[in-house]
Amino acid sequence: MEIQEALSKLDALQRKMIAYNHALGLIDYDGATAAPAGAAANRTETLALLSEESYKLSTSPETVELLDFLHENSAALDETHRRIVGNMYDEMNDMRRVPMAEYVEYQRLNAQSQDAWHQAKEKDDYALFKPYLEKMIAANRQLMRYMKPDLPTYDALLDRYEKGLTRERCDAFFDTVRQELVPLIHAVNAAPQVDDSCLFGHFPIAEQRKLSDYLMDVMKLDRAHVGIAETEHPFTTAFTKYDVRITTHYHENNFSYSMYSVIHEGGHALYDAHPADELAYTVLGCGVSMSIHESQSRFYENIIGRSRGYIRLIAPKLRELFPSLAEVSDEALYRALNKAMPSLVRTEADELTYCLHILIRYELEQKLFDGQLSVDDLPAEWNRLYREYLGIEVPTDREGVLQDMHWSGGLFGYFPSYALGSAYGAQMLHVMKQTVDVDGALAAGDLSPINGWLEEHIWKYGGLYDPGVLLEKALGAPFDPQYYVRYLRDKYTELYGL
Amino acid sequence: MEIQEALSKLDALQRKMIAYNHALGLIDYDGATAAPAGAAANRTETLALLSEESYKLSTSPETVELLDFLHENSAALDETHRRIVGNMYDEMNDMRRVPMAEYVEYQRLNAQSQDAWHQAKEKDDYALFKPYLEKMIAANRQLMRYMKPDLPTYDALLDRYEKGLTRERCDAFFDTVRQELVPLIHAVNAAPQVDDSCLFGHFPIAEQRKLSDYLMDVMKLDRAHVGIAETEHPFTTAFTKYDVRITTHYHENNFSYSMYSVIHEGGHALYDAHPADELAYTVLGCGVSMSIHESQSRFYENIIGRSRGYIRLIAPKLRELFPSLAEVSDEALYRALNKAMPSLVRTEADELTYCLHILIRYELEQKLFDGQLSVDDLPAEWNRLYREYLGIEVPTDREGVLQDMHWSGGLFGYFPSYALGSAYGAQMLHVMKQTVDVDGALAAGDLSPINGWLEEHIWKYGGLYDPGVLLEKALGAPFDPQYYVRYLRDKYTELYGL
Repeated sequence: MEIQEALSKLDALQRKMIAYNHALGLIDYDGATAAPAGAAANRTETLALLSEESYKLSTSPETVELLDFLHENSAALDETHRRIVGNMYDEMNDMRRVPMAEYVEYQRLNAQSQDAWHQAKEKDDYALFKPYLEKMIAANRQLMRYMKPDLPTYDALLDRYEKGLTRERCDAFFDTVRQELVPLIHAVNAAPQVDDSCLFGHFPIAEQRKLSDYLMDVMKLDRAHVGIAETEHPFTTAFTKYDVRITTHYHENNFSYSMYSVIHEGGHALYDAHPADELAYTVLGCGVSMSIHESQSRFYENIIGRSRGYIRLIAPKLRELFPSLAEVSDEALYRALNKAMPSLVRTEADELTYCLHILIRYELEQKLFDGQLSVDDLPAEWNRLYREYLGIEVPTDREGVLQDMHWSGGLFGYFPSYALGSAYGAQMLHVMKQTVDVDGALAAGDLSPINGWLEEHIWKYGGLYDPGVLLEKALGAPFDPQYYVRYLRDKYTELYGL
Repeated sequence: MEIQEALSKLDALQRKMIAYNHALGLIDYDGATAAPAGAAANRTETLALLSEESYKLSTSPETVELLDFLHENSAALDETHRRIVGNMYDEMNDMRRVPMAEYVEYQRLNAQSQDAWHQAKEKDDYALFKPYLEKMIAANRQLMRYMKPDLPTYDALLDRYEKGLTRERCDAFFDTVRQELVPLIHAVNAAPQVDDSCLFGHFPIAEQRKLSDYLMDVMKLDRAHVGIAETEHPFTTAFTKYDVRITTHYHENNFSYSMYSVIHEGGHALYDAHPADELAYTVLGCGVSMSIHESQSRFYENIIGRSRGYIRLIAPKLRELFPSLAEVSDEALYRALNKAMPSLVRTEADELTYCLHILIRYELEQKLFDGQLSVDDLPAEWNRLYREYLGIEVPTDREGVLQDMHWSGGLFGYFPSYALGSAYGAQMLHVMKQTVDVDGALAAGDLSPINGWLEEHIWKYGGLYDPGVLLEKALGAPFDPQYYVRYLRDKYTELYGL
C-alpha cells in the first residue's frame, strides 16, 4: 500500500464512521424530540443493528490492515494525520478487545436502561431503574476491563471522557473545592438572602421561544447550522460541525431555567460548530473531551451569562418579552439570577453550590465501582450526602437519585467534567482578559471578541491535541483551580456583602 | 445450508435492511422537520454513504447465496416466506444489475435535486431546478434500463409503484376519467357555485393543532405509534409499523387545508401501522403499493372526510375551536368543504377536479420519457394542459410545474397512483357498505367498523399479495372505474342540483 492510497482510504473510512454516528445520533435525538412514545423498542432494535455495523466497520480486517500500516508509517504523516491515525489506532484496539456480541448487547441494554430510567423518574419509582443500573455498572466494569485492562475501573472511566484524567488528579481538584468552597457556601447561607421573586410568575412559552432565538443570536450561533428543539432534559448533539442541535425545556412559571439551558447548550454548540473546516469529516472534527466541552458551556452559562455586563445587555429584551419585569432594575435582575442557595436538582443549581452536586456524584460513582456501595443502598447514600454537603433533605427519588439521565446511559465518570470544566473556564477568563476587553464587548453587545478568543485557543483545534495539552496551550500555564476558587469568592463576597 | 438456518439468516438480513431504512428515512424526515437549513450537504453525504452500505448488504455474496438457496427451495417454504423470498430475490436481482457507483451517485443526485427544487420553488425560478430534473429523468431512464430491461421505460416506472401496472391499463382508466368526468366538471362549473367563505378567516395555529389531535383521535390513530410534525409539504413516513409519522402544514387563514392533510396522511398512517404483527420487521411489513396506499389516504380524506356524516360528526369540534363557525350549519359546512372549482394546486384541489391534475401529470411524464417533450418546454406544456383541461391560466411556475416535490425526488410514474387509489376507494366503499353500516358508524362517532373492514381486507396483509390480487380479494370482483365515476356523479349532481 502507498501512503497516498492509504490516506484516501482513511478519509473514506472516517466519512463512513461519521455517517453511522450521524444516523445513530439522530435516532437518539429523534427519540428525545419527535418520536411517538411507543417507538422506543423499534429504536432500540435499529440502534443495536447499526451499532453492530459500525463496530464491524471499525474493526474489520481492512480497517485493521489500514490502521496498522499507517501507524507503522506515522513518521511519514503530517501532524493532523498522525493524530488521526493515533486516535483511530487506539480506539480500534480498544474496540477489538470487546467481543462484538457483548458490544452489541451493551447498546441494547443502554437503550433499555434509558427507557427504564425515564419511566422510573416519571413514576418516582427507583425500583424500576435499579436492575438496569446494576447491569449498566457491571457492563461498564466489563467494558473497561476489555478496553483499558491496565487501569483501575474508575480511572479507566474518567480517562474515557478526559484523556489522562485520573482519580488522583480529580481528588486533588475536589479537595480544593471542598476545602475552599464549603466555608464560602456556609458564609453565603448565613448572609441575608437575595430576592429572586421576579423570576417567578407567568412567562408564556411563545415569548420564551423568542427569548431563545434572541439569546442564540447574541451568542452568534449560526442558525443555518444550529437548530433548537424542546425536550424533557436539555442537551446538545452534533452530527458534524455543519449540523448541531441544542434543546431546551420551558417552564411557564420561570423563564430563567430555559434561558440558562439555552446559553449552556449554546456554549456546547459554539464549540461543536467551530472546529477548523479541514477537520470536518475526520475523527478530530469534534470537541476533544467532556471537560473541555463543559468549560465552554459553563463559561457561557455562568461566567458570561451570569455576569453583570451580560445581564445588562439582555435586560431590555427580557422586559420587552415579559411585562412583569418592567420595573425590575438591571441590578435586581443580576442579583436574582445569581442567588446562591443549596437545592435539590443539579441542573437548576446556582453557580456556587453546583460543584457540590458534582462532588456528591463523584463520591457515589467511586463507591459504586469500588464495590463499597450497592444499588440497593444508593438512594439512602445519595440522600445522606445531600444532607451532609448541602444541608437539605431529599423528599423523593425523582428529585434525588433519579434526577440525572447520565448513569442510565452508562455515562459513569462523566460528572467530574462539569466541575473541572467550570474551573477551566475561570482560568480562561483570567487569560482572555489579558488580550480581550470582555466587559467592553458585553457593554457593546457584540460578543465577537470573546468568541474570537475561544475559537482561536479552543474551538478550531477540535480533537487535535490531548485535553491537557490544549488547555495548557490556551492558558499559557498549568491548570490551577485557585482561579476558580478566587472567581467564586470575589463574586459571592461582593454579592452577599461578606 | 439447512432451511431453518437460512430462514434465521433471512430474518436477520431483513431486520438489518429495515434498520438502514429507518436511519435513511429518519434523515429525510429530520431534513423536512427539524434540521437547520445549512445541514443539507451533510445530510446528502450521510444518505449517500449509508445507501451504499445498504446496497452492499442487499447484494453481498452472502445475500446472493442465501436468496439463491431459498429461491431454489421455495417449494419447502410457507406462503409468507415464499412471498418474502420471491420479493427479495427479484429486488436483489434488480439491484445487482445497477452498478454500485451509479446507485450511490443517484442517491446523491436525488438529494441535490430535492434541494434545488426547494430553492427553485421558493424563488419561483424553474431554471434552478431544470438541470436537476433533466439529470433525474436521464438517471431514472438508465436505472429502469438496468432493473427492468424488458419493459418500456415508463411502464417500468409504473411497475415500481404498482406491480403489474402498465401504460395500457392506465390509459384505459384515464380514458374513462376523461370521457365521464370532464363533462361532469363542465356541468358543475356552469351551475351556481357554492359559498365557501366560512372556510376563510383567522384560524389560530394553536387551535388548528388541537383540531389535528382531535381528527387523529376520531380516526383512531394510536398516538403511541403515530407522531405528527409540521413541514412545508405534508407527507407520511413509516420506519416500521411501530413508528409512523405524519406531517401537516398550517395556514392561518384557512383551516381546511391542514384538516384534510391530516385526514389524508392519517389514512396512510392507519395502513402503515396495521400490517399484522408477524409481518413487522419483514419486507412485507408495509403497504404493498402506492395506489393501494393512496386508496386508503384518499378514502379517508374524501369518501369519509368529505361525507355529510363525517362533517356532521366533527362540526361541533370545529365550532368549539373556531368561533367564526358558530353560526354555520352542518349543511353549509358540508357544501363549503365540497366546493368543486378548477384550481392551480393539486394538493388543494377538490375531490372532483383532482383527477384532472393527475391526468395532466400522467400525460407530461409520458412525453418526458418518450422524448417528445424537453425540460425546456415543460413549463409551457404544463400551462397549456391546465388551460385545456381545467380552463385556467397558470400565473407562476411556483403554482405550476414547481408545485410538487415528486419529480425532484425521482418519483416518476407515481402520480397515477393518486387517481387509481381514489377510484379503488370508491369501489371499496360500495363493497364495505354490504357488511358495514358506514353512515351509522359516522352518526355514532365510532369509526371502528370502518377501520375494521379496512384492516381485515387491506391493512393486515401488508405486502403479502400483489396489489391486483389484494384488490380483487378485497372487492370480490375486478376493479371497475365506473364505481368511482358513479360515486362522483351522484355526489356532485346532488350537491350542485344538476
